[in-house]
Amino acid sequence: MSLQKRKTAEGILFTDMYQFTMAQLYFRMGLQEKQVQFDHYFRNYPDYGTHKAGYCIMAGLEWLVDWMQNTRFEADEIEYLRSQKTRTGTRLFADDFLDWLSRHGDFSTLNLFAIPEGRVVHPNVPLTVVRGPLAMAQILETALLNQLNFQTLIATKAARMREIGHGQLMMEFGLRRAQELGGNAGARAALIGGADFTSNVGVSALLGVQPKGTHAHSMVQLFIAMGMSELDAFRAYADVYPDDCLLLVDTINTLESGIPNAIQVFQELRAKGHRPIGVRLDSGDLAYLSIQVSRMLDEAGFPDVTIMLSNNLDELIIWQIITQIQEEAPRYGVDADHLVKRLGYGIGTRLITSWGDPALGGVYKLVAVHHDNRWQPAIKISESPEKTPNPGYKNIWRLYDQRGKATADLLSLQDEDPRSMERIVLRHASNQTKFRIIEKHNLSEVEPLLVQYLAEGRVIAEIPDLDTLRARRVADVERLDAGVRRLMYPHIYHVSLTQRLWDLKQDLVQSALHVEDLQHLPVKSDEAATPSP
Amino acid sequence: MSLQKRKTAEGILFTDMYQFTMAQLYFRMGLQEKQVQFDHYFRNYPDYGTHKAGYCIMAGLEWLVDWMQNTRFEADEIEYLRSQKTRTGTRLFADDFLDWLSRHGDFSTLNLFAIPEGRVVHPNVPLTVVRGPLAMAQILETALLNQLNFQTLIATKAARMREIGHGQLMMEFGLRRAQELGGNAGARAALIGGADFTSNVGVSALLGVQPKGTHAHSMVQLFIAMGMSELDAFRAYADVYPDDCLLLVDTINTLESGIPNAIQVFQELRAKGHRPIGVRLDSGDLAYLSIQVSRMLDEAGFPDVTIMLSNNLDELIIWQIITQIQEEAPRYGVDADHLVKRLGYGIGTRLITSWGDPALGGVYKLVAVHHDNRWQPAIKISESPEKTPNPGYKNIWRLYDQRGKATADLLSLQDEDPRSMERIVLRHASNQTKFRIIEKHNLSEVEPLLVQYLAEGRVIAEIPDLDTLRARRVADVERLDAGVRRLMYPHIYHVSLTQRLWDLKQDLVQSALHVEDLQHLPVKSDEAATPSP
Repeated sequence: MSLQKRKTAEGILFTDMYQFTMAQLYFRMGLQEKQVQFDHYFRNYPDYGTHKAGYCIMAGLEWLVDWMQNTRFEADEIEYLRSQKTRTGTRLFADDFLDWLSRHGDFSTLNLFAIPEGRVVHPNVPLTVVRGPLAMAQILETALLNQLNFQTLIATKAARMREIGHGQLMMEFGLRRAQELGGNAGARAALIGGADFTSNVGVSALLGVQPKGTHAHSMVQLFIAMGMSELDAFRAYADVYPDDCLLLVDTINTLESGIPNAIQVFQELRAKGHRPIGVRLDSGDLAYLSIQVSRMLDEAGFPDVTIMLSNNLDELIIWQIITQIQEEAPRYGVDADHLVKRLGYGIGTRLITSWGDPALGGVYKLVAVHHDNRWQPAIKISESPEKTPNPGYKNIWRLYDQRGKATADLLSLQDEDPRSMERIVLRHASNQTKFRIIEKHNLSEVEPLLVQYLAEGRVIAEIPDLDTLRARRVADVERLDAGVRRLMYPHIYHVSLTQRLWDLKQDLVQSALHVEDLQHLPVKSDEAATPSP
Repeated sequence: MSLQKRKTAEGILFTDMYQFTMAQLYFRMGLQEKQVQFDHYFRNYPDYGTHKAGYCIMAGLEWLVDWMQNTRFEADEIEYLRSQKTRTGTRLFADDFLDWLSRHGDFSTLNLFAIPEGRVVHPNVPLTVVRGPLAMAQILETALLNQLNFQTLIATKAARMREIGHGQLMMEFGLRRAQELGGNAGARAALIGGADFTSNVGVSALLGVQPKGTHAHSMVQLFIAMGMSELDAFRAYADVYPDDCLLLVDTINTLESGIPNAIQVFQELRAKGHRPIGVRLDSGDLAYLSIQVSRMLDEAGFPDVTIMLSNNLDELIIWQIITQIQEEAPRYGVDADHLVKRLGYGIGTRLITSWGDPALGGVYKLVAVHHDNRWQPAIKISESPEKTPNPGYKNIWRLYDQRGKATADLLSLQDEDPRSMERIVLRHASNQTKFRIIEKHNLSEVEPLLVQYLAEGRVIAEIPDLDTLRARRVADVERLDAGVRRLMYPHIYHVSLTQRLWDLKQDLVQSALHVEDLQHLPVKSDEAATPSP
């Protein structure tokens, strides 16, 4: 099979089969163009077992929008569906439906609203809202979830590592342990979430970041197998890369061979007017070794070269390394703060897989249907109160307290604007007894979060470059309370409903408890019927 | 950014930066065409925390070979490297190296040996062996690891789920929770490893498997929001898909609404001469519900329709569901064996992410260098005895006992053939005190495992179709001891060295302990110098 053929699995067929069978059913009933709204949100922060996130970082939107702009049913894909058979051997998809798909099988009719990439996001808040004709809004589901769930998951993990590493240099190294081509999306998300660089050349080329790396153990082994030494290997590397010399020092023995050889090469480089970058430690007790390495480098007159750590790092291990350094470094006459500031982190497997919780459980739920000339909220009834989606078309607001810290995300009906309220009632999304009242004068800002990116398929808001996305992340994380940013047992950030949205949800749930009443779902008020978030 | 541009991140730039900087160093030293061998192997079975694999299933080779056949440096990629700068702003890659890359920057010089896809594989046994010129063999590393690690990981997880599910129908559903495009490779691996079908349409199209699915909760919600009912939704579905009718019954209430409505629709279908497929349960206590659902379906005259289970299933949860059914079903007058045989499994997140252990730690190690007219074994010295690679060029054999069960994988020097030995000494790879001696008459078969797929870049062994790969998996798993197949605490399968390979490794390790001696690594014998596995 050629790679070209494999591209057919990355276009409109990059989805679950039931999207097409449901679309045909809707077509058969004349519902394919019925206006609907789907909300995409996750229900829980990633839970890594020993620790848990208190916030997430939105990512993946640019590539999703690209995919939507460039993807539609082409002739080959129509023919593929035409070839599908039912269990009895008859055609699964009828010609009239396939004709419709070949004419309308693209995303040019959809409206897409989203919280911008790089922003802090929380559970049960719509990250994206899709509004448009039923059949194509349904068909979008799988690709949207696939792209946004994964990039948000990885950006979140990267942000945690960045925080715990005191903001020091961080490189993403995980391509070899990624889910095949998904490693590219993961590297992009890591760069948004916290990595300064990635070793992934292709993604660096796409995003205009310089790809970075050191060298492998195999380089040193090769020299040895040819009858030369680690020192010869380091010298050769320094000759070719005198200004980018970062040496991997653990092929033989870090303290007895790697570091003495690196120091010798660094001295030779300096004699020729070059400044070495540093060393990389990839095995052993990284805290202990980095103290000893720091001491040896200090004594040799290289107090500022970087000590890059790698080998199955994650936020917990970085935290432990730093803690151990802070305790032990002084005993060896090493300044702990100075050492922590010269560390860098090369992070592979545990970032690209979001070790501990390798999937974000984002869902895509039907929340409203335009029917009988108005928007009817939709709800799935069987779920527990916590899982019951917030119905209908909503606005999303972030409330900042007098310190400028985010204090809650608030979901409101479309016609509500908390900026004009003197006091805001914040209802817990599922627990009737929990609510909070905030007076306007106790807030420094009320910020709407959703931005419309696609208007009937047309891009109306550009996604900025990587530096802007990163600046957003930094600003948003700084506006979180320290308790929410904590590595373990973070404070739970409040995600609340306005009183009117809460009332609407209760009415729907109450009606739904009587299956007989399902045909008469109430809509709270006429004002709520204008269809834009 | 267009999708087309993103393809540049999937070609030869789909790698780590250090592969290119090392390649330039080798070029600078005139070593770019030096013949070397890399072995690719993993060191440990996936460890899912609460349980652990006792075998893996090889997968990913076909897509790797495709990639190697279709990937080379093109002008754009050369220009990208030409634009890269050192820290001082000078050019990172020189013109002579880039000229060499533009002429030789493909995989047409490499030999690739591998254990075929679908076969059972074990730690520390080379899954693939790459032999050829240094620069391109090095550049291949990242893509090879990326593709084989991931597909082998997922095929392994799928095989476990297949075994624990009593071989019943299993569908892969995970695209929305996968690492973006990596979901395609994962679906392929799941099909090799144990899934009968996938919901992933694109991959099904590529592999010639029928894509499968049911419908979403949103379909029922839509009907309700339009003032109709679950029964109306089911009827509509049955009208359009009378011979493929599998209904999702938990949107409102499984036992009080979903199943009664499904039974009514099934009766209507039957009256029209159609045979319903079954129901899907996606929430709640799946063991309890499937017993009740089975009883209701039996009583309504549908004892054979499928009960498909989904919702965060993995091998442990499937095991628990089956165990609970076996205990509880009789109390409700339901035949447990009959029920287990009518179950099917839709498996999403926990298969596509290999929940519990989301990465296979496969490595790609330099094991031999052709130097001074002979093959010199290479070794990395700093590692613990268990992690020390087995040096040089090796053959791989699988030994079957008198029952026809696999009893050990054996690594030998290239010139050794255990088929001609009267007694075989099996040495533990790192523990000197552990060995076993097997007499020839106690073996039913000694099977070589490595197959050469590429000879100087040319495909010389085709990879068969999916059915053949699956048949291999089934045959290999059946030839494993029951203890090795066990869900938890499996027996450790033996991976051993011949006496001569063991001796060579000890000599290398001993020499390496004296760094001074590194320039004089011994080669055990001249016979060992013929360079093909």
